[in-house]
Amino acid sequence: MSCYTRSKFASPQQIFNLFMDQLSKLKTFLKEQKIDYFLLPNSDEFFSEYLQPSEKRVEYLTGFTGSAATVIFGQNKSYFFTDGRYILQAKEQLDLAEFEIINIAQKPLISWINENISKQQKLALDAKLVSKNFVDNLNVSLVFLPQNPLNKIWQNRPKKNESPIFLVPQNLCGQDSLEKRKAVAANISADALLITKPENLCWLLNIRASDIEFNPLCLTYAILFKNGEMDFFIDEKRLKNIELAKVNVVQSDCLDLRLAVIRKKNKKVQVDASSTNYWLYRELEKNGFEIIFKTDPSEILKAQKNSTEISGMIKAHEVDGLALTKFLFWFEKSGAEIDEISAAEKLQEIKKENPNFLYPSFATISSFASNGAVIHYHATPKTNKKVAGNSLFLLDSGGQYFGENFCGTTDVTRTVSVGNPSAEMIENFTRVLKGHIALARAKFPRGTSGAQLDALARNPLWLAGKDFDHGTGHGVGAFLSVHEGPCGISKRAHQALLEGMILSNEPGFYKDGEYGIRIESLMLVEKFDEKFLQFKTLTLAPIDSRLIDFKMLTYPEKKWLRSYHETIQKTLKPNLNAEENIWLENLVSSFST
Amino acid sequence: MSCYTRSKFASPQQIFNLFMDQLSKLKTFLKEQKIDYFLLPNSDEFFSEYLQPSEKRVEYLTGFTGSAATVIFGQNKSYFFTDGRYILQAKEQLDLAEFEIINIAQKPLISWINENISKQQKLALDAKLVSKNFVDNLNVSLVFLPQNPLNKIWQNRPKKNESPIFLVPQNLCGQDSLEKRKAVAANISADALLITKPENLCWLLNIRASDIEFNPLCLTYAILFKNGEMDFFIDEKRLKNIELAKVNVVQSDCLDLRLAVIRKKNKKVQVDASSTNYWLYRELEKNGFEIIFKTDPSEILKAQKNSTEISGMIKAHEVDGLALTKFLFWFEKSGAEIDEISAAEKLQEIKKENPNFLYPSFATISSFASNGAVIHYHATPKTNKKVAGNSLFLLDSGGQYFGENFCGTTDVTRTVSVGNPSAEMIENFTRVLKGHIALARAKFPRGTSGAQLDALARNPLWLAGKDFDHGTGHGVGAFLSVHEGPCGISKRAHQALLEGMILSNEPGFYKDGEYGIRIESLMLVEKFDEKFLQFKTLTLAPIDSRLIDFKMLTYPEKKWLRSYHETIQKTLKPNLNAEENIWLENLVSSFST
Repeated sequence: MSCYTRSKFASPQQIFNLFMDQLSKLKTFLKEQKIDYFLLPNSDEFFSEYLQPSEKRVEYLTGFTGSAATVIFGQNKSYFFTDGRYILQAKEQLDLAEFEIINIAQKPLISWINENISKQQKLALDAKLVSKNFVDNLNVSLVFLPQNPLNKIWQNRPKKNESPIFLVPQNLCGQDSLEKRKAVAANISADALLITKPENLCWLLNIRASDIEFNPLCLTYAILFKNGEMDFFIDEKRLKNIELAKVNVVQSDCLDLRLAVIRKKNKKVQVDASSTNYWLYRELEKNGFEIIFKTDPSEILKAQKNSTEISGMIKAHEVDGLALTKFLFWFEKSGAEIDEISAAEKLQEIKKENPNFLYPSFATISSFASNGAVIHYHATPKTNKKVAGNSLFLLDSGGQYFGENFCGTTDVTRTVSVGNPSAEMIENFTRVLKGHIALARAKFPRGTSGAQLDALARNPLWLAGKDFDHGTGHGVGAFLSVHEGPCGISKRAHQALLEGMILSNEPGFYKDGEYGIRIESLMLVEKFDEKFLQFKTLTLAPIDSRLIDFKMLTYPEKKWLRSYHETIQKTLKPNLNAEENIWLENLVSSFST
Repeated sequence: MSCYTRSKFASPQQIFNLFMDQLSKLKTFLKEQKIDYFLLPNSDEFFSEYLQPSEKRVEYLTGFTGSAATVIFGQNKSYFFTDGRYILQAKEQLDLAEFEIINIAQKPLISWINENISKQQKLALDAKLVSKNFVDNLNVSLVFLPQNPLNKIWQNRPKKNESPIFLVPQNLCGQDSLEKRKAVAANISADALLITKPENLCWLLNIRASDIEFNPLCLTYAILFKNGEMDFFIDEKRLKNIELAKVNVVQSDCLDLRLAVIRKKNKKVQVDASSTNYWLYRELEKNGFEIIFKTDPSEILKAQKNSTEISGMIKAHEVDGLALTKFLFWFEKSGAEIDEISAAEKLQEIKKENPNFLYPSFATISSFASNGAVIHYHATPKTNKKVAGNSLFLLDSGGQYFGENFCGTTDVTRTVSVGNPSAEMIENFTRVLKGHIALARAKFPRGTSGAQLDALARNPLWLAGKDFDHGTGHGVGAFLSVHEGPCGISKRAHQALLEGMILSNEPGFYKDGEYGIRIESLMLVEKFDEKFLQFKTLTLAPIDSRLIDFKMLTYPEKKWLRSYHETIQKTLKPNLNAEENIWLENLVSSFST
């Protein structure tokens, strides 16, 4: 919901001219430096899911506001690489005389570079924005620029967000930072661990910030030593009134200098290959470290939430579920004229009633009818649909909660009927629901991965020759990123599920140009017995019974639905008003077994 | 059923003395050669599932008749490595004063070697019996013996089986050998392909033999060239009246000499790392080949059966299903006194009535009550149980069929009630059945692997905190090995399922010391629509309705059962007698929906 600000101030032609001016400055730079091509990924040095305004270089140069993009600027012509989701948007937003748009599903970026840039040509890069793996696969002459040319070209560039850092107290995070650091240090295969993922760092230090939207992260690096002590690269002014035991605060921009000092006592350093940018890698190499590429052990420890974190997540789901339930009542009963944007605003308004609500955990997807079939849809004034007629409304939302008594992160999708749903919609919704319930009810031996469970959620659709084109579940952080590794539920998620992990359960079905269905709740992995694990659904938001064909459900499925809604009713009752309670009561009683 | 011949001729003490004598000869050899340890895996140079008598070196030296074993003979003490299935058997069959038995689940062989054999000690190997991967992981001083010491020690060693080779005519295999060879050659990444898997070779040349039990294979090597021509290493006398177009027959024991000749024109040679023994690898290296380790392309082509092979498999399942159905009628109705061995013999007798039946495709598992819980059980006179009382009888059998009109391979397990089954047996049987049906009914997008489908078969058991400790399915050859790669249904089976593959569907449940349940049919992967595949069950053998709790079944499950048994009835009716038909009719009508 944050991507269309620029269009408020200028006509399309004016915008084009603006971009052309910026682009011509870049081209002049390329000519001066005798560089044939400059590669610019839509990325920051942490490969973050969300970019802060100062990092939106691709948007600044091209006007493209989507997420997946890499541009190769040439002295004459430029090439814009994106995936199927964004091809249409790129065609609308880019100057097609300047940019050739390439779908990476048809031509992967690396192959394009190796096939189209000759050995005599030079490709320039900002080493901070690309990974070692990426660079290793390029077979052309590379120039690593001492600094990104945008640093000079970009006028009125937003300042880097250096938000205040705050502590997550022990009663909310459940484990002392030094204790965490010692546990991680005991699991590293080197003298020191360079921490490159901001979420791992925030978890380890029990700190949060708001450098980017949606995820409460502070974007920087740290180095953990074998004894649990840490070098934390951050401006001291961001740490007002915060004391961190056994943490040595080092100015952010001194990382390269500090590495030389550290090297004197530490020979081997461990880094995560997937999140280490090429600049960091070269700094380590320059200083003569022996580099061990291995996943940061924080990753798997962080994913297994402790009982305090779990309590916080449960509480967050209670207040989030309360807001969504109130919203669903309003949506069905208010009689107000609703559109996608006003619906999202209403939900936000209800959520804000809880003082612990900070902000959404991602950009709310509020989509009606055919917009619901666009999996990564964001309503804009241009696309905004009125909620009217016979179709489905899909609402995917989440929140970051933090206050005195609890903190946590939520992510939930409900799809509700508007007007009279067709028999086909009901059948498809019921198949999605059967998959959702199969996963929610699953028990599985310890050691089982999400890849093994994925088919349980898809099978009811598969039996009708249908499927959905996204993962069934992702890991979720405890007042951290809403998309968190290393666990997941998809054919590629080979991490064994462990007690305390929290994952989404979100099968869906999308009919292009017509409607979208998704039912998403978060689930906690918990013990069933010594040998087996099971899921506990944390999300508390009713499922629209008008979209269910009860004849298609088995007895255990109906029992699960009944019991799930009884839990919702019991938990939320004290905080719903009389009308809302009657509405919920009627809904619960529709789930007879 | 082939493993207890020796005990017919000697008392246990005599047998011990015999082994001690043989062992002392080996120890003398080790001392003479100044070798500290000699490693002997229970294997042949093709890493075959079944060993011919001349290759049963471990049995000859130790008396152990199981399959999984590696022995490290020392000058004083020896070490016997096996897995959980065989620990008890090893304790019974080995001289415990001489052998220390080690469970490889607790201590993997390679770790044991690297930890217990010092750098000053010498470990001798027969390079033909170990893989390159295995050798690469050893961190000790190795001696590769010019020949296996058993060759000298073993008196009256059985002669190598060099069975006559016969052709599978075009009307049974459906594709000309040269055509197959050209298709494989087009997919190799080298000048030549060394074929190390006998099943790939037999498939490529449309030949079979009976060098080992159960699998109709001829054990030798071949080299395929880019133009589809082939060097086939075999004694010419085994090829009576057989003409193989564009095949150059070379004497088996001239492989090493022939490689030197081939090398002159062929620089790169491709081999499959998993099935190439270390001796072969060294021969290739010695001759200066550039070695490309890559799976033999025959593997994936062979697995996708053509329509002729599929017709043969269907016909084989009809006659095999007829025999098993007749057996099940006899088992239930004859009133004869039955034990595990006599039951297996009766089944074999019925199968032999079809002239195309050659021999079983593996050693029949005929097991009653607690013996059914031993997954790899083989009835011996010592373990043979009378089928009486209240429990379950589990029968896992298969056949190799070859005749004028069809050829094929079968593998089927049925579990039937004896006396009055307990409620617990019925519940567990029904859960296994629900898993079997879920897989049989599955539809899935092209590209889906067996690893993704495995949970469908386990889920009904998992929901009760139960599981089974073996794969859900294995690939099956068309008149070839009953266990065939590269496809399977288990958490490790990452090969995408493709049209024409044939796999088993065999969930089970085993209660140690009480009973075993397994329901196994073979299924063909076939097209559902452009995007989806489905299974077609080939096996035709009734499922015991007395063991089903129909209340636990859904409507689609009951419908599947009814339709499956109607197909059995329709197909087998003409070849069953009146009594058998009435029995089957009654069974079918018990599957009401």
